Amino acid sequence: MRKLINAPADVVTDALRGLAAAHPSLRVDPEAGTVVRADAPRAGKVALVSGGGSGHEPLHAGFVGPGMLDAACPGAVFTSPVPDQILAATTAVDGGAGVLHIVKNYTGDVLNFRMAAELAEDEDIEVASVVVDDDVAVEDSTYTAGRRGTGATLFVEKIAGARAEEGADLTAVADVAREVNERSRSFGVALSPCTVPAAGRPTFELGEDEIELGIGIHGEPGRERAGTATAREIVDAALTAIDADMPLAGQELLVLVNGMGGTPLIEQYIAYAAAAEWLAGHGATVARPLVGDYVTSLEMAGVMITVCRATPELLRLWDAPVDTPALRWGR
Amino acid sequence: MRKLINAPADVVTDALRGLAAAHPSLRVDPEAGTVVRADAPRAGKVALVSGGGSGHEPLHAGFVGPGMLDAACPGAVFTSPVPDQILAATTAVDGGAGVLHIVKNYTGDVLNFRMAAELAEDEDIEVASVVVDDDVAVEDSTYTAGRRGTGATLFVEKIAGARAEEGADLTAVADVAREVNERSRSFGVALSPCTVPAAGRPTFELGEDEIELGIGIHGEPGRERAGTATAREIVDAALTAIDADMPLAGQELLVLVNGMGGTPLIEQYIAYAAAAEWLAGHGATVARPLVGDYVTSLEMAGVMITVCRATPELLRLWDAPVDTPALRWGR
Repeated sequence: MRKLINAPADVVTDALRGLAAAHPSLRVDPEAGTVVRADAPRAGKVALVSGGGSGHEPLHAGFVGPGMLDAACPGAVFTSPVPDQILAATTAVDGGAGVLHIVKNYTGDVLNFRMAAELAEDEDIEVASVVVDDDVAVEDSTYTAGRRGTGATLFVEKIAGARAEEGADLTAVADVAREVNERSRSFGVALSPCTVPAAGRPTFELGEDEIELGIGIHGEPGRERAGTATAREIVDAALTAIDADMPLAGQELLVLVNGMGGTPLIEQYIAYAAAAEWLAGHGATVARPLVGDYVTSLEMAGVMITVCRATPELLRLWDAPVDTPALRWGR
Repeated sequence: MRKLINAPADVVTDALRGLAAAHPSLRVDPEAGTVVRADAPRAGKVALVSGGGSGHEPLHAGFVGPGMLDAACPGAVFTSPVPDQILAATTAVDGGAGVLHIVKNYTGDVLNFRMAAELAEDEDIEVASVVVDDDVAVEDSTYTAGRRGTGATLFVEKIAGARAEEGADLTAVADVAREVNERSRSFGVALSPCTVPAAGRPTFELGEDEIELGIGIHGEPGRERAGTATAREIVDAALTAIDADMPLAGQELLVLVNGMGGTPLIEQYIAYAAAAEWLAGHGATVARPLVGDYVTSLEMAGVMITVCRATPELLRLWDAPVDTPALRWGR
């Protein structure tokens, strides 16, 4: 196992120490496993908290900052954060206007966030929860009942974050988060597996001439295995699966072409070229594109495509200023 | 070879088509191999042109925009751009105040940029050139006489770009570019090789328990091979080599912890934590940190550390607004 780590048990705390040293705009507690905006809590502002297993960086800690999340609570690699940890993040950011939990649909995450929400309510913090389940590839998986939450999490966190920054109340922020999730779909393809440090071996085996269609973000099995294919064929498989679930023709879209962690940017742009061509050929318009490593799966090679059927209001919120380690624009 | 491409011969043009589709702020000519600021030429402003082999993305095309480069000319993967291509980029951005060529020290790049500069001067465009040679690992390599140009290229392009944006003349812009190069050093470590698409096999072989110290950005051999090591040991090797060449104690530094393309962000932050700790323990101060994939080598796993001994003026220029696909801050 060739990884740039000190010891498997220290991966998350060591990375959080690096995050803290690199970003004074964040208040990081490596031991507690919380990453909080340095200016939190902000009185009267709805706070957004997300979290989940580590190994998906920059998700979620890289999205903490003005215009997006107020806190993140990273668990161990591919492991849900624990309720106390989520509660600590929730308490740290509550400014009296309530807290929105943004939860990817994995059984452990859903249970632990629910428990944390109950504990927070015992402390008179109002909590609303939105579950993200955008992955069309499989209905149930190793980690999920129902669809998995993947790339749409970025869209939900950005757009709901903008709405909260504008002063909307908890119901309005939760509503737009749900709206974004409902209008979003993802499909991922792996060209290689990844290795969880504590396990020391790949999450699955791929033959030299195989790819895995419909992977999630934990190296869990996808929909089917196929022979190696061109970037155009891979993008076609992903967008055809999405389009079958949510027709794209005539829509204005947010489009994320997302590297899974081990795919170089030059290949991500090749995939984006294929996606832009496919969408134009199917009567859809790319309103806002985003290309890069945003929701990853350790060093997995591959690509995930996420689309959101935008509205003028969602585009306005997407364009609103954001200032986080991984996403930054506007002013 | 598992890559997200259509065909080895189409890698660069397909990626440039993706870049064009994703970034309307750029004028991209995939056939000519030029990427130019959409608002170029800007009358009276010194223009910055860089380029080199592809496979190092986001370098250079991802650094084209206000506050940084005016144009980039990407060659084939790990292959110098040709003189006509560099000339086309130079002509496209010349606003009458001259053009600075920022050239990484590889034999082919240096020769082809020199030839392009002569051709441009025949067209009455004033050209100055700065060669970047920051890599302390080896004196001569497969591709270079003298030291290689690697991570410091980002520092040079950002800081000289800021100086040009402020209206400095060609001499002043070239001077600050040289100053940044002279004050910068890099050292890289590979945990895996990479595969050039047209070759179809890895650039070198690494045993399961080996890493390569002192690699460049083309998978060319480094200084020595070692057994696998912890992130702290790898960072210590890199910073010790840099410090032996340019003492760091008492200095305020720009620090880049740079992923090589196949190393996940969580591991890059682990390396940054180790670097911050090492520097603090050796009496150096991190004035500005940057962590991410900026100067890559296809899907190579590994990390490169680049430091620049800053001055208040260099920090001021570093902090100046920049708006490119890969680097964006301020206003």
